[in-house]
Amino acid sequence: MIHRGHLYTISKAKSLGDVLVVVVARDSTIRKRKGREPVSDENQRSALISSLRQVDAAVLGVEGNIYDTLERVKPDVVALGYDQHHMESEIERESKARGIRLDVVRLDSPSPSLKTTALLKDF
Amino acid sequence: MIHRGHLYTISKAKSLGDVLVVVVARDSTIRKRKGREPVSDENQRSALISSLRQVDAAVLGVEGNIYDTLERVKPDVVALGYDQHHMESEIERESKARGIRLDVVRLDSPSPSLKTTALLKDF
Repeated sequence: MIHRGHLYTISKAKSLGDVLVVVVARDSTIRKRKGREPVSDENQRSALISSLRQVDAAVLGVEGNIYDTLERVKPDVVALGYDQHHMESEIERESKARGIRLDVVRLDSPSPSLKTTALLKDF
Repeated sequence: MIHRGHLYTISKAKSLGDVLVVVVARDSTIRKRKGREPVSDENQRSALISSLRQVDAAVLGVEGNIYDTLERVKPDVVALGYDQHHMESEIERESKARGIRLDVVRLDSPSPSLKTTALLKDF
């Protein structure tokens, strides 16, 4: 499900370039990181993300290897969500080693309470 | 929050015309109907709905009087969500009495389980 925290992140990412490609997490990654089934599956999440005006394309990621996706998408800028576990320095170093030129930006969050679980605490 | 059930409804509504105006429920209406505070307030919900590619405009409704909104928006077609309480026949009769020409369509649902509460039952 999409909430205003996602929208904030997407607007910030869009402002960094002309075309916004969103990499959608695989179900297997969510199972591993969250220890539960995703509420919607990866194709449903991809369709939801694609329905947003500011999103030009959505692609499913490759579990455990973000560099295959980066080589396919060839972005000028990688925008990381405030809560994504990837390290800016590691992406910059590894991309350089593979001959990919890109900048990595860590997005901020308007408020840490803007998470699905927090929004739904009284639901 | 927006889930794939909302997206289904919006796509169906969009297919009925050229310009899709979504009437967003007021907080007071949600409090009355659901007996709880809305998860996001009416302005946040309006911004979320406006972020969808298929939505041309979002307007806040008028509690207890849909006809003020209809007179402002002047739609050719009113698309009711499958779970909205309004009666098609009442809207048609009352619009006619006010000199507003419009058709009323009741949208179907892909599945009654596509509700936030159902989607989150295992969350």
